Amino acid sequence: MKNAEAVVAKLSEAAIRRYGMIEAHDRILIGASGGKDSTSLAYDLSVKRRWWPLPFDIAALHIATDVGDSQDIAPLSALFADWGIPFESVFVPVRERIKEGHTMNCYWCSTQRRTELIRFAMERGFNKIALGHHLDDIVETLLMNMLHKGEFSTMPPVVRYRKYPLAVVRPLALLEERQILAFAAEKGFSSITCTCGFDGASRRREVRAKLAALTGGSSEQKRNLFAAMSNVNVEYLA
Amino acid sequence: MKNAEAVVAKLSEAAIRRYGMIEAHDRILIGASGGKDSTSLAYDLSVKRRWWPLPFDIAALHIATDVGDSQDIAPLSALFADWGIPFESVFVPVRERIKEGHTMNCYWCSTQRRTELIRFAMERGFNKIALGHHLDDIVETLLMNMLHKGEFSTMPPVVRYRKYPLAVVRPLALLEERQILAFAAEKGFSSITCTCGFDGASRRREVRAKLAALTGGSSEQKRNLFAAMSNVNVEYLA
Repeated sequence: MKNAEAVVAKLSEAAIRRYGMIEAHDRILIGASGGKDSTSLAYDLSVKRRWWPLPFDIAALHIATDVGDSQDIAPLSALFADWGIPFESVFVPVRERIKEGHTMNCYWCSTQRRTELIRFAMERGFNKIALGHHLDDIVETLLMNMLHKGEFSTMPPVVRYRKYPLAVVRPLALLEERQILAFAAEKGFSSITCTCGFDGASRRREVRAKLAALTGGSSEQKRNLFAAMSNVNVEYLA
Repeated sequence: MKNAEAVVAKLSEAAIRRYGMIEAHDRILIGASGGKDSTSLAYDLSVKRRWWPLPFDIAALHIATDVGDSQDIAPLSALFADWGIPFESVFVPVRERIKEGHTMNCYWCSTQRRTELIRFAMERGFNKIALGHHLDDIVETLLMNMLHKGEFSTMPPVVRYRKYPLAVVRPLALLEERQILAFAAEKGFSSITCTCGFDGASRRREVRAKLAALTGGSSEQKRNLFAAMSNVNVEYLA
């Protein structure tokens, strides 16, 4: 196993164990955006499925939309086939569904895609949805929620839905984006993965720059921000 | 009442009410560093004492140390006398007390001064210690604790000691530093107040720059960070 792959394998294993993400006979649906994160996640779970002490199943769902540039999913589909991961793609007209008087934004698109993932998972008997969000995503959302909502909250590593017999898990929660980029480069799939081209993602770009300014680029400080979410000292708050 | 004075009066009243900082017959000892913050606090409490619905008493203790530049406290003492606030000064050899193998730092100095405030308050029958920390201080400490300790905690507006029949209150908790600076300038005591000259305060300066980068100078975003400390959403954390 190469260097970056070992890092991904080890830190995703740590997250899965720490947060109890995999239980025996889980049927896990991977939300495959076509980006480097969920593609790395898919590969990692396809390897873990072969040796993990508890049996579990995986499949991937790609959701094509009318937002951003359209992506040729043939290479992605081929990659998943290589890795032995059942792969389907459905189209969701995200832009078309916008209600009158509203404009397109990242929150709307992600809600629409999440709804489709849940619908698909329920119809096909999956009990977990695995998403490719990593530590940087989680810390960025923590900062955004603090700065814009005045709330200490983020995308947690595990969310159990109340309305559905479903949980969302984020096995890459302990991985920094740079570690995933290194893995995608090492594995050679950087060129076929895509990034959303919708320019409403500016708030995300902005918070990325803010996170860098806040930590001065220090991984330790970024990981401390992540740790703070599990270390709330109510005696020293208002 | 002038502009900046009205802002200080209103926001300190809001903090005192929101956090229940003043109870009937409180004897409040103000920690008077000689800086603009605690001097503003002293003035504000001296005015409130005259009309506040609950009776309370105030006095101020200045703690001189062997850290930073020495300050001529005569003007400060005169100011407090003008405002009708009993004022005393004691000397604490902070630097001298450093244990072998340790170096001077802000944490050590503040602990020594806090201990002296507590000792004095207990001896003289005070039940509250009022400190001049403002919203920027509280948010900066929140960020420092997240970045360096991996903990979500800060200096709260009110702390009740377990070991002593004493509470620490921070009536300026809802005021931004710029509002206090404006008040000190308006009131004309900027020139007699001092700033600690110890250059170990670099971490504080650093976090100040980080806070500015994080909020882009937006007061709203800074106030949202403050609000997050009272708005912890445990369902969306790990």
